[in-house]
Amino acid sequence: MTMAKYQITDVGSLAKWGDFYGGFSPESSYLGRRVLDKELPFEFFGVTVNSREPGDGVDFWHSHSKLEELYLFLEGEGEMGLDDEVVPVKGGTALWVGQGVMRVWRCSPSSPTALKWICVRAGGDRLANLSGENSDAIKVDASERPLPW
Amino acid sequence: MTMAKYQITDVGSLAKWGDFYGGFSPESSYLGRRVLDKELPFEFFGVTVNSREPGDGVDFWHSHSKLEELYLFLEGEGEMGLDDEVVPVKGGTALWVGQGVMRVWRCSPSSPTALKWICVRAGGDRLANLSGENSDAIKVDASERPLPW
Repeated sequence: MTMAKYQITDVGSLAKWGDFYGGFSPESSYLGRRVLDKELPFEFFGVTVNSREPGDGVDFWHSHSKLEELYLFLEGEGEMGLDDEVVPVKGGTALWVGQGVMRVWRCSPSSPTALKWICVRAGGDRLANLSGENSDAIKVDASERPLPW
Repeated sequence: MTMAKYQITDVGSLAKWGDFYGGFSPESSYLGRRVLDKELPFEFFGVTVNSREPGDGVDFWHSHSKLEELYLFLEGEGEMGLDDEVVPVKGGTALWVGQGVMRVWRCSPSSPTALKWICVRAGGDRLANLSGENSDAIKVDASERPLPW
């Protein structure tokens, strides 16, 4: 149990989100990603802050067996692949995804700006029991399951 | 257990966040607030989307006995009261608050824009077991504990 009463980090204004850097591990870090649960003492949920340039996206599918997620898009235009569907997203789209759904995303090549979003995840347990070595994530390489665009 | 695989709602672009309306109940609804867990089938966490005009803020204190919260500010300038401290916040401030901390917030009277933020909350249980009739929230009226500004 954490002893902090509150704790602050700074992700910068939306205009600067393409400049930050971080991930779940040094190996998974890249420009335009911050994993706030690596910076703040979350116990029960996790939050990532994301920016992707036009045409750029994730290069693997993943799903979660225990975590539900919210993708809250704030700026730009993009697409999410959800199992066999492709859904357009843009600033204002709030997309809840349940357990077991395979997902990928990209910023559309024609997007006027980078695609910027927050992803929140939680399950019915402490986050530490659902991530890292105890991860509930299932990853599928694009060589096994082609991306939908 | 929900059967939806994914579900979408639209909160509009950041520029429009002052125009939406909603709350935990009709009585608690006001302009500049959307409770996404009333619109999407969240099981384990909840998310509110908020906009307050310069000088406007909450008029009561509250704390949570079981939920932790993240306040992620996206635009504008404001202040949060956290027990006996007052912390400045602005677009980019990510503020994690632990259980038991009394909190209030306002958009600064001098803020160049409305204060806009997302609040995420979760505990170690289903959200339905921590809200509504089972709420872990403790509210204190400003007549009992004066606001810090």
